[in-house]
Amino acid sequence: MSSSFGQMLRITTFGESHGGAVGVVLDGFPARFPVSLEVIQAALDRRRPGQSSLTTQRRESDTVEILSGVQDGLSLGTPIALMVRNEDQRPRDYANMVDAYRPSHADFTYDVKYGIRAASGGGRSSARETVGRVAAGALAQAWLAATYGVEIVAWVSQVGTISARVNEDTVTVAQVDANDVRCPHPEHAAAMIASIEAARRDGDSLGGCVSAVARGVPVGWGEPIFDKLEADLAKAMMSLPATKGFEIGSGFAGTQMTGKSHNDAFVKDEAGRIVTTSNHSGGIQGGISNGMPIRVRVGFKPVATISSEQETVTPEGEATVLAAKGRHDPCVLPRAVPIVEAMLALVLADHALRHSAYSHLPHP
Amino acid sequence: MSSSFGQMLRITTFGESHGGAVGVVLDGFPARFPVSLEVIQAALDRRRPGQSSLTTQRRESDTVEILSGVQDGLSLGTPIALMVRNEDQRPRDYANMVDAYRPSHADFTYDVKYGIRAASGGGRSSARETVGRVAAGALAQAWLAATYGVEIVAWVSQVGTISARVNEDTVTVAQVDANDVRCPHPEHAAAMIASIEAARRDGDSLGGCVSAVARGVPVGWGEPIFDKLEADLAKAMMSLPATKGFEIGSGFAGTQMTGKSHNDAFVKDEAGRIVTTSNHSGGIQGGISNGMPIRVRVGFKPVATISSEQETVTPEGEATVLAAKGRHDPCVLPRAVPIVEAMLALVLADHALRHSAYSHLPHP
Amino acid sequence: MSSSFGQMLRITTFGESHGGAVGVVLDGFPARFPVSLEVIQAALDRRRPGQSSLTTQRRESDTVEILSGVQDGLSLGTPIALMVRNEDQRPRDYANMVDAYRPSHADFTYDVKYGIRAASGGGRSSARETVGRVAAGALAQAWLAATYGVEIVAWVSQVGTISARVNEDTVTVAQVDANDVRCPHPEHAAAMIASIEAARRDGDSLGGCVSAVARGVPVGWGEPIFDKLEADLAKAMMSLPATKGFEIGSGFAGTQMTGKSHNDAFVKDEAGRIVTTSNHSGGIQGGISNGMPIRVRVGFKPVATISSEQETVTPEGEATVLAAKGRHDPCVLPRAVPIVEAMLALVLADHALRHSAYSHLPHP
Amino acid sequence: MSSSFGQMLRITTFGESHGGAVGVVLDGFPARFPVSLEVIQAALDRRRPGQSSLTTQRRESDTVEILSGVQDGLSLGTPIALMVRNEDQRPRDYANMVDAYRPSHADFTYDVKYGIRAASGGGRSSARETVGRVAAGALAQAWLAATYGVEIVAWVSQVGTISARVNEDTVTVAQVDANDVRCPHPEHAAAMIASIEAARRDGDSLGGCVSAVARGVPVGWGEPIFDKLEADLAKAMMSLPATKGFEIGSGFAGTQMTGKSHNDAFVKDEAGRIVTTSNHSGGIQGGISNGMPIRVRVGFKPVATISSEQETVTPEGEATVLAAKGRHDPCVLPRAVPIVEAMLALVLADHALRHSAYSHLPHP
Repeated sequence: MSSSFGQMLRITTFGESHGGAVGVVLDGFPARFPVSLEVIQAALDRRRPGQSSLTTQRRESDTVEILSGVQDGLSLGTPIALMVRNEDQRPRDYANMVDAYRPSHADFTYDVKYGIRAASGGGRSSARETVGRVAAGALAQAWLAATYGVEIVAWVSQVGTISARVNEDTVTVAQVDANDVRCPHPEHAAAMIASIEAARRDGDSLGGCVSAVARGVPVGWGEPIFDKLEADLAKAMMSLPATKGFEIGSGFAGTQMTGKSHNDAFVKDEAGRIVTTSNHSGGIQGGISNGMPIRVRVGFKPVATISSEQETVTPEGEATVLAAKGRHDPCVLPRAVPIVEAMLALVLADHALRHSAYSHLPHP
Repeated sequence: MSSSFGQMLRITTFGESHGGAVGVVLDGFPARFPVSLEVIQAALDRRRPGQSSLTTQRRESDTVEILSGVQDGLSLGTPIALMVRNEDQRPRDYANMVDAYRPSHADFTYDVKYGIRAASGGGRSSARETVGRVAAGALAQAWLAATYGVEIVAWVSQVGTISARVNEDTVTVAQVDANDVRCPHPEHAAAMIASIEAARRDGDSLGGCVSAVARGVPVGWGEPIFDKLEADLAKAMMSLPATKGFEIGSGFAGTQMTGKSHNDAFVKDEAGRIVTTSNHSGGIQGGISNGMPIRVRVGFKPVATISSEQETVTPEGEATVLAAKGRHDPCVLPRAVPIVEAMLALVLADHALRHSAYSHLPHP
Repeated sequence: MSSSFGQMLRITTFGESHGGAVGVVLDGFPARFPVSLEVIQAALDRRRPGQSSLTTQRRESDTVEILSGVQDGLSLGTPIALMVRNEDQRPRDYANMVDAYRPSHADFTYDVKYGIRAASGGGRSSARETVGRVAAGALAQAWLAATYGVEIVAWVSQVGTISARVNEDTVTVAQVDANDVRCPHPEHAAAMIASIEAARRDGDSLGGCVSAVARGVPVGWGEPIFDKLEADLAKAMMSLPATKGFEIGSGFAGTQMTGKSHNDAFVKDEAGRIVTTSNHSGGIQGGISNGMPIRVRVGFKPVATISSEQETVTPEGEATVLAAKGRHDPCVLPRAVPIVEAMLALVLADHALRHSAYSHLPHP
Repeated sequence: MSSSFGQMLRITTFGESHGGAVGVVLDGFPARFPVSLEVIQAALDRRRPGQSSLTTQRRESDTVEILSGVQDGLSLGTPIALMVRNEDQRPRDYANMVDAYRPSHADFTYDVKYGIRAASGGGRSSARETVGRVAAGALAQAWLAATYGVEIVAWVSQVGTISARVNEDTVTVAQVDANDVRCPHPEHAAAMIASIEAARRDGDSLGGCVSAVARGVPVGWGEPIFDKLEADLAKAMMSLPATKGFEIGSGFAGTQMTGKSHNDAFVKDEAGRIVTTSNHSGGIQGGISNGMPIRVRVGFKPVATISSEQETVTPEGEATVLAAKGRHDPCVLPRAVPIVEAMLALVLADHALRHSAYSHLPHP
């Protein structure tokens, strides 16, 4: 198992869905930065189950505790350990899952790899692991905003077959949070909500996409060749449960364009900065931020846990059928929004520090 | 700059497009494995410029030399350093590029980040850096095949707006290499070739997609949470020049499906193994290989270097126009095929070793 | 700050001496191994303050809690988070230390580096950070014993100017724990105890050495060139607070010998194994274990905190005098014994896994 | 095998003693710094065999070639690959070593671990591997001097039983290089030379110590907890062939002192800086540089290769005798001086960059 991510700013997450606690150690966070429990809690509240009719009714307050690294509201430069106790444990809802491999879940692969498996919930493969990411990401996001003026906004851009086009230059968190599905386009949001409710009634589930933008990133972040900004972003996002695809800038649509139309022309703007007239590059060229908004899109598969009956096998390979009891989201997209923001913030903050090492060197 | 990739099997690449040499140090490669110069050279020959009318006419033999780590044709378990001298240097072709930022290239970001830039070619951001990846990947691929029976095949699945559907269970390298565009679907290949030649005549360029499959991967490779197999694959692919998107399994198309249709049902096959009846998961569940073919797709933008005139600025921000002289590919896709194979092999071999550490532990 | 150590078996420690908690996340620990709270607690009890008259009277039960990674007494293969709440906080004892830099402490360097400092105790630089190491090390030690039959024993081999020679082939933990100073040589132990008590009365402190041996390590652990076993052991030990020196095998005494006498002759033993007739190498040759006992020695400086008055400066650089109030050990050596054992176990277990990746590879 | 070292400034060495080449890739080196082939070559010349009567007569010019990362004498910020061809290969000198394990060499452990071994010389375990370290270290040393005014000097402080005390505040490289044994104390140097020549005549060998100092290191370098400056220095030095011990500051002698005498009192100096009146800490407190000279000492065992007959076994375990033919140093200490300087420089430069990331952060 490999539970750490990042080089200079590094998170280590821990915890199963049903166990003592989940949490994170955030190491390398700059000293003397205000650390607010409220900021962390607010981010967790956006990720929490039970916050709307669209999400699982598992009820956990997800109250975070700071175990270390903070004194009088300021970071000490030492590891910040954040913990959330697991509260609402109903292993009985999962009883039948011990005896059958849930389709498109990690039950089978965990069993073969580890020879043991958390008896209820997804264990470590559960989306509950992302509690630690969101908690740490909230601090990274606050630091990026205060230090560099970076603004990060994510939103649901697709649910099932319903897509919404959103102005990435202007979209705000308030617009995103204005409805339960977290799509800042009101009409499409309504359609998405209706389709999620239909899926739930049908014992089915939906996938979709989260898009995100980071505005105000300075030129120069990213460490080619292997730690290109888009490479680390891709890894960050594809480490999230249920992700199937990642795009930077023009993405797969861009692969159908020609060089003439895809190239982003450089011009000098009114402020005298070199900018591009289009942003197919998604704010990154050669693995390094170019000052334009960084634009990513992340695809999530439909939730694997559904209440309809599905064919599967027992660990012994005997055919059986399985229908999920208990509580589960028919669509994870709304809750994925703060998670994508967190990973975007963690990657950017790590690279801000890595770049800072060189960009501020004293010169002979 | 960060030029190393992998944990137990680790590559470190070096070299600019126009300098003394490019190469790679492959560390952690198992001892006593046959290392054949021919195997490495054959892989490089598939990546080499000038191999067909579709690719750049830059003529370099890309002859590889083994500097260390091999004795009497066997690996010593020590770092294998592989070097290719740069031969065909025509810095004059790039003279005008010193004075203008090529649109959608790394010129601008490298200049700001490093305050210096290789005066010709793309320097380190050139696709020439991938020579080292392909050389090391050839050894990883040979080792995976011999040790685990893993078969890796990549092909061009899209050029511009032309897509080809290919049977991932049966496609072979011979089929891929049967034509210059490396698309194993003859009719679509012909259309792709025609479109590339049209783009070249038009001073334009095309993008597209490379798909790849790894067959025969055992159950159990991949290290959740952060080093999930798809996360490391995403990073590997998105560290390649010109990539805009990555998909695993059903990819973005899968995000439009519902849980009922997307879930891969488990069954026992004739051999008594647990397999899935569909493979939307792309051979990975919970970040761990499940024994089904691993399927990835990588999107490449249209080549940024085109011979048509484009608007841009000088380093001082003055407006200018630029038209590429010299030699360049109107479409990198055919040459990207061995590169994608190499990265797929390097990730899998690294994870084979990481998993081996635990799977073969003596037990008390 | 960098709070992680190890590659495949990796610890991340967190916590200040006076804060919410201290702890560790142990990642990469093999699945299905019995994890006993008692084993962890027993190791912590050997490290705990207040266990004898020789150590600080700070009274903390150091009760450990397992937050994750364990189910029904077995490891899940997932991160094991262990936490110890801080109980006995007397910041008033440290009040004067805010205003003066304690000589040979980290107050000054932390202040300059981080611009902030835990207001009481040593914060992160306190030996209390080692709670996490000991807790994780206890599991590593149990795993090494059960899986490979490795026996690890550490003891106090020197206090001040009193040294004790101990038979490394036979010394046991029971002999070590037979007295408060943890020196398995009864007469020298008595002299050491007397000297520690004298130092305390005198408002002074003593240093010394901990020696350790790992018996039963198989041939082959260690990853040259940079992760040689002795290199990682050196880093592990020199990352402990107050360490001034590290030796492997013959150590500095060996540097005064000649090749003829220092070389360890190979012979075949009765069991047919290749062994050496002497062990100046300390069980490691070329960075790799050779099957002989691994012998290390670690030097600790005299405790910096003393109750006698010392000259120092305030953060503003004004001269002042400082005498420690509160509770402190006149000699840390007895409590360092389990800490050295923990670091030895963590390094060996990490390398056992790294070697296992290659040694059990299937062969073509 | 693990052939990389460092986090932000990272070296990857490659090459066997008898193969195509040895070398290094230096990654993360700052851009726009003058890279002089002469500086690198001069460092290698100090490490080269055959430079005096005290060292092996193996004659290799060790001519270095820059393969990448430099343009017009300036670093590009990209990996700098440096290569030295192996010239003087006399595998016949080593013929008998294939059939017998050289005592206190890595032959046995490499054979067991890798199942294969470079047939002549030490292969990868040879001191020839340090060519890459010295080449990269020369650049790190030049950069530290130009950027921070750091001065690094190493010298032979002990040969066999002859020790020389040297003023660490004033010793210069010129004084060190004034004699063949590189001990800046002329009388002791003469005695050391005599003892080395006697050992050679006697078919024997000597060990000893190299001491080193880094003056002018700013306050703040080092990343507790695990990447404390002394921990990384210990690892760096103990990764060198033949090392048996490492000391920082007062070292093992300091363990015999008491707190009152060992503590370094803080005072304000004439320039208004906070300094210490003694330097038992060796310039590091809490793992972080405190502005005082960094003082280390490294112990090397007597050379294992001696021309006298020694008892050993064949790979099959049969008893045999072995006497080294060929050329070998009776004492490696003089040639270890530039190697210790290189490792000291590489660790400090890596930590300079790591600290720079935080110390120059823009503040909100």
